This record gives sequence, structure tokens and C-alpha cells, in this order.
Amino acid sequence: MSTHLTELLKAPSGSIDLSMFDSRATPGFDGTKRDAPHLMEKLGKRLAEEQERLYAGGRSGTDERRMLLVLQGMDTSGKGGVIRKAVGLIDPQGLAIRSFKKPTAEELSHDFLWRMKNALPEPGILGIFDRSHYEDVLIGRVRKLVDGAEIERRYGSINTWEKELSGSGVTIVKCFLHISTDDQLGRLQERLNRPDKYWKYNPGDVDDRKLWGDYRQAYEIVIERCNSAEAPWFIVPSGRKWYRNWAVATLLAEHLGAMNLEWPKADFDVEIEKSRLAAT
Amino acid sequence: MSTHLTELLKAPSGSIDLSMFDSRATPGFDGTKRDAPHLMEKLGKRLAEEQERLYAGGRSGTDERRMLLVLQGMDTSGKGGVIRKAVGLIDPQGLAIRSFKKPTAEELSHDFLWRMKNALPEPGILGIFDRSHYEDVLIGRVRKLVDGAEIERRYGSINTWEKELSGSGVTIVKCFLHISTDDQLGRLQERLNRPDKYWKYNPGDVDDRKLWGDYRQAYEIVIERCNSAEAPWFIVPSGRKWYRNWAVATLLAEHLGAMNLEWPKADFDVEIEKSRLAAT
Repeated sequence: MSTHLTELLKAPSGSIDLSMFDSRATPGFDGTKRDAPHLMEKLGKRLAEEQERLYAGGRSGTDERRMLLVLQGMDTSGKGGVIRKAVGLIDPQGLAIRSFKKPTAEELSHDFLWRMKNALPEPGILGIFDRSHYEDVLIGRVRKLVDGAEIERRYGSINTWEKELSGSGVTIVKCFLHISTDDQLGRLQERLNRPDKYWKYNPGDVDDRKLWGDYRQAYEIVIERCNSAEAPWFIVPSGRKWYRNWAVATLLAEHLGAMNLEWPKADFDVEIEKSRLAAT
Repeated sequence: MSTHLTELLKAPSGSIDLSMFDSRATPGFDGTKRDAPHLMEKLGKRLAEEQERLYAGGRSGTDERRMLLVLQGMDTSGKGGVIRKAVGLIDPQGLAIRSFKKPTAEELSHDFLWRMKNALPEPGILGIFDRSHYEDVLIGRVRKLVDGAEIERRYGSINTWEKELSGSGVTIVKCFLHISTDDQLGRLQERLNRPDKYWKYNPGDVDDRKLWGDYRQAYEIVIERCNSAEAPWFIVPSGRKWYRNWAVATLLAEHLGAMNLEWPKADFDVEIEKSRLAAT
């Protein structure tokens, strides 16, 4: 099983400077944009088979394992696009997509990980977190929603929790969709120029752009502090949408492949069933 | 907007004799099996655009409408296959798939429609019922889980409820996936011949085959009694998987088209936002 892209996109350990990463790079992609549709189709077949094995194991109760894709990135980095185009290659029956908005009053009354724990995928399921517990150390830090000591505590809580998850059979794939301010400018302009994109535009996004530097720094700290062997970060260049989608789909396929999933054995006598069926 | 297949597959009013319907027919399909992949790809693009408009309306709060696809059929008729291949053409963020198994003790303590009402899609969402309230008049009748008077009452309850749903902006698409006993025999044999299909095999399916006639009759009554103008049944020939998937995808596209969905208008001043953005 190839884990080529997994190795290429894994965030380095130690301190991170995101300005060193080219958002429009295409590491590991063999070809040009024109080759992307064909490669996505091939990936779709590979993902379909791997994911069906995962699903079969969960459904038949023979394999407790599951997968969790965590998507983070600045506004317009393409979390929704990745779900539509990469995750969308997979049988929707095997998916559990959770989108995390501003916490409710009830959620705020619990520890920040509480709502995450309630949203974990069942055995055999590929869970998707569209934003996640990382918001609590990103916007939490930038907007000073909690004090510095609490932010510090949270990095540790996240690492402990992710390690537990990994130990209990959850393969965690954390993708930071990396774009530049220019990439974002172009995408916001497109939303204002096309009436079919107005619904995606939020005036608050312009205000958040003024905090770009603060968010970038918060991401750098997150990637540095929460980059364990059990749950590493992947820095996915996302300035080119076709590359971004291919890369996340490939990461999913490589991680599924590394799980060595097997079809469940029959829990009935195949020959007896053949006879019973023939008699109908 | 074409509603060609909608008209072709709509169940006739009056009494229904399913033995008159050829499970391997391909009404409305222009070509052969070889053309199916190309036509599915085209349909995928059409569905993607229509569904994004539905989703946009729901997300921006400008359109309360939603859609509900109800899938019913004998074992192996392909409810799961339709979700994978036809519904799977659609952005998974816009889907809410609910699979109805044997009711729990809590569900049984309520009216049979209670768990359905809790499972309805939100505005903008395409809900999928993999089995549905119809089980309560199908297996309910065949296995005599409730008495005849209660079954009679349920047909009326279903019609009243579906009419209410339709009036409140839910477009209901009810598909009966029609297969023959021979189609089922071949598919069950395949599950016993291929180790990658064992997990889909359930010895109980052979027992249910002995009740084929009773189930067929129960379906005929359902289609006759619950075939309103607001929520008609479609009889989808499902002996050929590629036709079945194309037909359900086409029914979804035709129903979305008939909703005349529009992109939400901007709820901000586009020119002001362009200036604000340019200043960042």
C-alpha cells in the first residue's frame, strides 16, 4: 500500500512558518490540471472498494475501526469543496458529516471536547468534521474568548484525547487546507461577482481578513503543538482546487489502505445456505 | 423542465397487478447499458446544480422547501445500490439518509408515524428514507404484527400525513424498486458465491422468499391505497441495476427541476462589499 502522499504532506515537527509553504504547489501530483478528472475517477474506484470494506466490518460487527477526517482552514479554503468533490466520491451511507458552528449555550456549559465526543463516527463509518475542536484554540485564541492558561490546557487535552481515539481504533486524518491571502481575495471576489455565489458570501469574512496574521499564527501554533505520531497534521496546498481535492482523496485512500481492511467472514454455513436458497 | 420519466413511471390509479410489470424493462432510457455511465455523468452535473440551489435556499433561509425520497422494495431490490450510485451523485452535505430497522421499544410506544416525523429533512435538504412508514403496512400486514383494522387506519393516516407534508413544502418521491423472484434468486446466489458479498447475506432472506406472494400483495395494496396526487408511487423496474440507478436519479432531477428553484438574492449591498473587500 502506497503512503507516498501521506509522507509528502505530513507537517514537519518543530516550529512551523506557514509563509514557507506555497499554497499553489502540487506535490505528488503526476500531471497537470487536465489529468485531474481522470485521476479522480480512478481514485473514486479505489476509495469505493476500501470504504466498502470498512463499512462491511462495522455493519457485521467484526471490526470496530472507523476513520475521522478533520478539515480546518481559513474561510474559502474549501472545506465544503473537499466534502463535495473528494468525500463525495464515497458511498454516502458510509459517511457521517458534522459541521461545527458557534457552540450553543448547552455546549458551552460543558468542556470544549464534549460536543466532539458526541459526534464521533460509529464503527465502519468515515466521519467528517467540517471545523472541529481546533476552533476552540483558533478563534478561541484570536478573539480571546478564553484566557491564555485555558488555551494552553486545551492543546494538552486535544493531544490526550486524540491519542485515546487512535488507541480505540479511530484513524484520524487532520487536514489544514492552506491558502494565501491572494487566493482568498480571488475567491471572495468571485462570490461577489457571481449571483449564484452570493449565498456563500458573508460580510464578516472581510472583517476576519484583517485578522489574517493572527489566524495564521494560531494555526502555526496548533500544528506545532498538536502534531502527534497518532494524529499528525497534513498541510494541503489548497490554492488550486483540483489539487486540493485530489490530495485529500488520496490521503483518505492511503489511510484506508494502511488499515489492511478485510471482508468479514461468513457467519453462516455457505453450502447449507446455497441448498436452502436452491429449494425456494 | 422535462417530466418525461415522472409521467412514464407513475403508478396507474386503480388496482395494481405487479405481475404485469416487467422488472427488466427500461422505459424512457435512450440507448443500451453501454450508454449508462455517460448518461449518469451528465445527470450528475444536472443534479449537482439543481441540488445546490435547493441547499442554498435552505441555508440562507430564503426557501423552506425540501425533498424526501422514499425507497421501498423486496430484499436485494437495490435500495442501498440506489443510494450509492444515484443519490451518491449529489453533494453529501445536502443529504440526510435515514435507514429504518425494526422499531425500538420507545418507537413502538408511539404512533407508527412518530419516528418518521422525527426523521424529516431540514429545509434545503434531500432526505432519503431507506425503508419507511410503509414497512408498517407491509411487514405489519404480512407478519400480522397488528390487526386488520389498524392496518386499514394506517393507510388513511399515511395519506393524510403525506398530504400535509406536501402542503408544507416537502416534495415526496416514492419509489418502489420492482424485481422478480428470479432477479432476487440471482442476487442472493451472487451473495453466496462471492466472499466480498457474504456480509450482505442474511439467512432470513431465504425465509422471506417463501412469503414473496404475500409481500407482493401487500405492495399492490399499498400502491393502490396510498397513491395520491401529492405523493404518487413510481414503479421503477429494477431487474437491471444500471437502469434502476439512472431512473431514480432522473426522477430526482425532474422533481428538482419542477420546483423552479432560484439562487437566493444577496442580503447585503454587493457594491459596498466589493469596496470593503478591495480595501483589505
